[in-house]
Amino acid sequence: MEMGLGHDISCPYEEMMENLRVVLVGARNPLNIGAVARAMSNFGAMHLRVVAPYEKAWREAKSAVGAAELMARAEEFATVSEAIADCTLVVGTTAVGNREIRQRLLSLAEAGPELRERVNATRVALLFGSEKWGLSNESLSHCHWLVRIPTREEHRSMNLGQAVAVCLYELGRQKKIENGKAKVGKLTTTEGAEGPQRKRRQPEMASMENVERITGTLLEALHVSGYIAPKAKRLAEEKLRRMILRFRLEAGDAEVFLGMVSKILWKLEQK
Amino acid sequence: MEMGLGHDISCPYEEMMENLRVVLVGARNPLNIGAVARAMSNFGAMHLRVVAPYEKAWREAKSAVGAAELMARAEEFATVSEAIADCTLVVGTTAVGNREIRQRLLSLAEAGPELRERVNATRVALLFGSEKWGLSNESLSHCHWLVRIPTREEHRSMNLGQAVAVCLYELGRQKKIENGKAKVGKLTTTEGAEGPQRKRRQPEMASMENVERITGTLLEALHVSGYIAPKAKRLAEEKLRRMILRFRLEAGDAEVFLGMVSKILWKLEQK
Repeated sequence: MEMGLGHDISCPYEEMMENLRVVLVGARNPLNIGAVARAMSNFGAMHLRVVAPYEKAWREAKSAVGAAELMARAEEFATVSEAIADCTLVVGTTAVGNREIRQRLLSLAEAGPELRERVNATRVALLFGSEKWGLSNESLSHCHWLVRIPTREEHRSMNLGQAVAVCLYELGRQKKIENGKAKVGKLTTTEGAEGPQRKRRQPEMASMENVERITGTLLEALHVSGYIAPKAKRLAEEKLRRMILRFRLEAGDAEVFLGMVSKILWKLEQK
Repeated sequence: MEMGLGHDISCPYEEMMENLRVVLVGARNPLNIGAVARAMSNFGAMHLRVVAPYEKAWREAKSAVGAAELMARAEEFATVSEAIADCTLVVGTTAVGNREIRQRLLSLAEAGPELRERVNATRVALLFGSEKWGLSNESLSHCHWLVRIPTREEHRSMNLGQAVAVCLYELGRQKKIENGKAKVGKLTTTEGAEGPQRKRRQPEMASMENVERITGTLLEALHVSGYIAPKAKRLAEEKLRRMILRFRLEAGDAEVFLGMVSKILWKLEQK
């Protein structure tokens, strides 16, 4: 390795990070929110979304120094589904713990290549739970897959800002940096056998907004037709959402499928 | 837990980390020192050394929660040369800035493999400078090489705890572990996965028989609800089948989905 390339080792992925939405769910600590914002600014990920933050924490964090522009542009949402509506891939972070995991679960390093590929092509949400509890089962049910940073069994849970920093580092991680710009075409080649020439065009995937509409409409149809008992509706919703996510709907199919389910529901309600 | 893999994505490098000394030079902020200690504890790097810390900061940090054992064992030194005397490789971290660099300088990802190799064999010191000034030229002069975490030109300097977390993550980052307790990478990829988790990654796919049943039942439901005009039924059937195939239904989901659609159709026909 040659010396003196230091001034070229800068973050190469600001463009890529344009597609990324870092979503904090139920963050409680203004210092942590500020730390997240600064880590994001370090790595060029400029789009922060918060879901139902503790109001006081959010106000205090807004005035945190070091990433003022990013904080000023941060978006606030009441629910996870609203915060991810315009995203086509939703990845949750988890320390796993004793929780039952129903999705695909990858270590962060494993997830890296695919995550980079997807965020280059489409809008991706990366979800982080509260410092205390992590992501709830309801929040997890919105995720296509989950990633975990490998930590020690005895001390699994990471500080929020540090977890965000590590994830963004992995997302931008690239060995070969030339002239301060990574060769985006090489992005997937460093870690996998497939070269850019092999890369096929990925179909546009369904937005989470449409996934959610399908979930809601189908849930209602199942409810009306007696498939779901009224009491079980909430649990059924999470199960149903996970199943619909496993369909990995393409954008066009999602539109069609939604149309079908809506029509069926309409007919069911005619009676 | 059904998938059972969560508990296997743990930090695999505690033994390796035994050879690592994280050295903080002139740290000023007790919160940051505490954050460093917790990040170290997360990644199993249990040996902290501090050089000429601000006395008050050091006292306060010692009582920081979350990594008490690690803090209790931390060693204090007056100079860098004393702190690294028993190490055979010294690596400094730097944001570079306007400083003239005289050593070999690598991005952290580039340095990763060699760093892992060396720390497996010998005692390695990883130096971090103060939050405000980074490592002085004097401190840098003790380093064999320097690493830099690629950050944005406009916001280069990282929070100390986050920088340590990212470096330790890279040091422990490995998709495939040859020996040691867990093949971290392999566990969650298709090969090497055992038991129920393998079912998760390579799920049994729906039989065409069930795909056909779903297609037929859904087609009928769409017909009854008026979504499909009678004349268009044949063409609709082909389109519908192709779409259902694109869902790449897993076997279990196909059963569930068929049950849902059948129930809906039954209800539609009740009238």
